[in-house]
Amino acid sequence: MREIPLAFEPLKTAVDHLLAAGGKRIRPVLVLLTGRLYRPTDEALINLAAAVEMLHTATLVHDDLIDGSLLRRGVPTLNAIWTPAATVLTGDYLFAYAASLAARTENVRVMAIFARTLMTICQGELHQQFGNRATMLNREDYLRRIYAKTAAMFELATEAAAVLAQAPEPQVQALRQYGVDLGIAFQIMDDILDFTGDARVLGKPVGNDLRQGLATLPVLLYLEEHPDDPLIPRILAGSSGDEALIEEAVRRIRNSEAIPRAIAEAEVLVRRGQAQLQSLPDGPAREALRWIGEQILRRDR
Amino acid sequence: MREIPLAFEPLKTAVDHLLAAGGKRIRPVLVLLTGRLYRPTDEALINLAAAVEMLHTATLVHDDLIDGSLLRRGVPTLNAIWTPAATVLTGDYLFAYAASLAARTENVRVMAIFARTLMTICQGELHQQFGNRATMLNREDYLRRIYAKTAAMFELATEAAAVLAQAPEPQVQALRQYGVDLGIAFQIMDDILDFTGDARVLGKPVGNDLRQGLATLPVLLYLEEHPDDPLIPRILAGSSGDEALIEEAVRRIRNSEAIPRAIAEAEVLVRRGQAQLQSLPDGPAREALRWIGEQILRRDR
Repeated sequence: MREIPLAFEPLKTAVDHLLAAGGKRIRPVLVLLTGRLYRPTDEALINLAAAVEMLHTATLVHDDLIDGSLLRRGVPTLNAIWTPAATVLTGDYLFAYAASLAARTENVRVMAIFARTLMTICQGELHQQFGNRATMLNREDYLRRIYAKTAAMFELATEAAAVLAQAPEPQVQALRQYGVDLGIAFQIMDDILDFTGDARVLGKPVGNDLRQGLATLPVLLYLEEHPDDPLIPRILAGSSGDEALIEEAVRRIRNSEAIPRAIAEAEVLVRRGQAQLQSLPDGPAREALRWIGEQILRRDR
Repeated sequence: MREIPLAFEPLKTAVDHLLAAGGKRIRPVLVLLTGRLYRPTDEALINLAAAVEMLHTATLVHDDLIDGSLLRRGVPTLNAIWTPAATVLTGDYLFAYAASLAARTENVRVMAIFARTLMTICQGELHQQFGNRATMLNREDYLRRIYAKTAAMFELATEAAAVLAQAPEPQVQALRQYGVDLGIAFQIMDDILDFTGDARVLGKPVGNDLRQGLATLPVLLYLEEHPDDPLIPRILAGSSGDEALIEEAVRRIRNSEAIPRAIAEAEVLVRRGQAQLQSLPDGPAREALRWIGEQILRRDR
């Protein structure tokens, strides 16, 4: 029975559409570079790299549906061109596909890390969507959110690749911490770009987080400096649909000290992550991992 | 970072709500009985049983959302009491939870079967939702749909449990085939109950499939016997919202030979599945697996 293929053309089209849109592919690059620290790239590492990118794609499909985002990487999202039902199921299929690729590593610990990461991501997303708005302006809460949203998958990439490449346990832990630090820095830069970026380069509109009533690091730092500015709390509280007000808020934050201060925080994390690399085998792979930290600080998309 | 729990009370409430609603728990029972053929129930088998039931629950959450079903097991579905976004994310979380439980078996082959099953289920659901309506009245297509929808998870339960219990490979295959046959019979009986069942016993309304324009085995058999009855094709083609017409169609099918013929088909499958058990170790576990076949034929919910 299992042999009968459930050929379903629209699913193939959807997956092609998603993958052709590109993206930075930073997560699979982290997997492959981590593996290269220890051995030539093999089938298992390639499967893991594909699994991580597929998992990332699956979460984007459901996130875009939930947020009602219509554009990503400069192309329409799946929910913009398909029904909600098809979008839910395609995301589910991609989760399953990712799990199937991870299973091909034939490594039990990798599978466990993989499942744990997916739970963290889902919990974080639920927390962001439906959590207590009162704690939203809390720095601790912000870090927890972006850990779940982004850093957990960077951590998966580096930790699982190190496990698969049979790195010594202290180096697995160093790479795991490197993944967490770079992941948080990556998301901070993402949150900065939502204020400073060029919509054409980003492939999506700016000011999105504020429009959704989401307080990111630039907002938290701006509010520290301007505790008496009533505009931002008003937007956050009311999810104001007034586009002119949101544009004004974006302008104020973009021109404030909050931006360089947020960049400085991202840089501290990148430096701490890069410092973890000192204990690892020297060579081009380690140098490339260091370089990725620099690239994160120079992101323009 | 990972140590910080993302305590999220509504998720716990939702999971409690789903699990407290009960259900027949036939899938975890299949896991535990299969395991007991070979050894005392251990931690790994219990984790697998929980993983299979959790995966089943996850698929129900997304299915009910997609179908807009408001009642299951006599209690409101998650989508009836929560937002679509929360429902999507809770389903995702349950998939992740199921994968995490499966990973605790620490068996690579079990994990691979698990991931493959989830892909089959998603593809089948996509096919059912968006496939070509022209092939819908095809018997082959019906069997493929219910394999993906139900039998694949029965197959997962028995095959993975046999693998985990280190059954000899021919017995793994016999148990796998038993799972497929009983799963298809189980779904045929489910499709019959949608015409003959008591809504109060079922915990959900009857005539659902027809209302959604879905042709199940009783419909296919009825159309074979009554090729000139225009009512059924009219409902299937138009997804007629006319409740009186749907009730009349349910009545005609319920009182036709299609019902005993469909039951007879389910019985053939149950007998074939039970015959697979002959090669397995004798004892109470095997007797219980045989008995499950009988119970499937006697389903009233």
